[in-house]
Amino acid sequence: MNEKLELLYEGKAKKIYSTAEEDKIIIYYKDDLTAFNGVKKSSIQNKGKLNNEISEILFKVLENHGIKTHFIRKINNREQLCQKLTIFKLEVIVRNVIAGSMAKNLGIPEGTIPPNVIYELCYKNDEYKDPLINEHHAVALNLATYKELDYIMNVALKINDILKIILDKESIRLVDFKIEFGKNELGEILLADEISPDTCRLWDKQTNERLDKDCFRRDLGSVEEAYLKILKRIK
Amino acid sequence: MNEKLELLYEGKAKKIYSTAEEDKIIIYYKDDLTAFNGVKKSSIQNKGKLNNEISEILFKVLENHGIKTHFIRKINNREQLCQKLTIFKLEVIVRNVIAGSMAKNLGIPEGTIPPNVIYELCYKNDEYKDPLINEHHAVALNLATYKELDYIMNVALKINDILKIILDKESIRLVDFKIEFGKNELGEILLADEISPDTCRLWDKQTNERLDKDCFRRDLGSVEEAYLKILKRIK
Repeated sequence: MNEKLELLYEGKAKKIYSTAEEDKIIIYYKDDLTAFNGVKKSSIQNKGKLNNEISEILFKVLENHGIKTHFIRKINNREQLCQKLTIFKLEVIVRNVIAGSMAKNLGIPEGTIPPNVIYELCYKNDEYKDPLINEHHAVALNLATYKELDYIMNVALKINDILKIILDKESIRLVDFKIEFGKNELGEILLADEISPDTCRLWDKQTNERLDKDCFRRDLGSVEEAYLKILKRIK
Repeated sequence: MNEKLELLYEGKAKKIYSTAEEDKIIIYYKDDLTAFNGVKKSSIQNKGKLNNEISEILFKVLENHGIKTHFIRKINNREQLCQKLTIFKLEVIVRNVIAGSMAKNLGIPEGTIPPNVIYELCYKNDEYKDPLINEHHAVALNLATYKELDYIMNVALKINDILKIILDKESIRLVDFKIEFGKNELGEILLADEISPDTCRLWDKQTNERLDKDCFRRDLGSVEEAYLKILKRIK
């Protein structure tokens, strides 16, 4: 029961396995970390374990607030049992504070707080470097329908509202995050992938200390320590 | 009366002059042509005259169909009298056929006809190479409000509907176009800038011959002849 069968897919930070049940997969969290579309690579001890646990906690929080996710349960230190979905080839990004690519590409100082919440879509495509697109491009590329995109945007903004409050209580500023969605056999759209310091920018509310993958991208200090700080605060 | 006073702004293809009336400007159409954010430059004999006349015709067509534009009247071969506007720092792009940057950036073959009309916003900013943005970025950058962006999108799609029909009658396929908008003292949002083969992709409906700036960008033949063909057809 709940044993890994066939390796279905290996990503940069996770492996996906089939199980005896056709509608379920096992997600294995690796220690590998990459940045800048795979140009910078490393392996961080315990990173997979930390992200598995952080992701579990945040998926449960979201489920408790009415967000449907693919998460079923944690199996062990490295593995989660999840619903098998057909993943939209979209990276959905929500930003509360300007940082990263948006700061760089539009010439806005990192840390600027915009008057609105920024919602972005990128085309999940390594060859074209996950380019920024809009909903019209997504429809033209046959990635989703306008109706699905509306639903996804609304859920993404709800997720932002929930996570912002939860993290703020632990003195963590939710700067931005990337999420993915997928559809199950019933046609339901569920939150997929992971929510972790690999996929969120998380700053200490008082010091602006980076407690996320930017520690790795920009060599700002121990990745393991930063991720462990996040886990301890939200646990 | 209607004489150029002070040079207010010199762009890549046009010069803008003040007039004795504060709410009016004179737009002078230059022969200069640039591509790839100014990297490729040339001067095409008569280009300014051709674009002045093509733009005049198309602005009049749009006015006749209820679109408010900055165009008042043509003064001479090179010059138009227009309303003075505060220009939104936005390039508004509408695409009926995939070509140019969208084909390149998303790996879609040029000439693909999408199931939907593609609407795009770019941030008019030479330093950052007029990057693609979405409406949330535009609001964060204080370029326009959500309400103004909605209005601009609706007008842009109406303009597309009108131009597509008009050009189709002359056996010209409206592949895509870039327009700009501005606001007058009354707060009205008007179509600004120009509509010409510098700012549209126009293909012969039968042969797909390029009758636009791609002749220059890609060295596909005489720019002057191509623009003259457009003028003769729509005249």
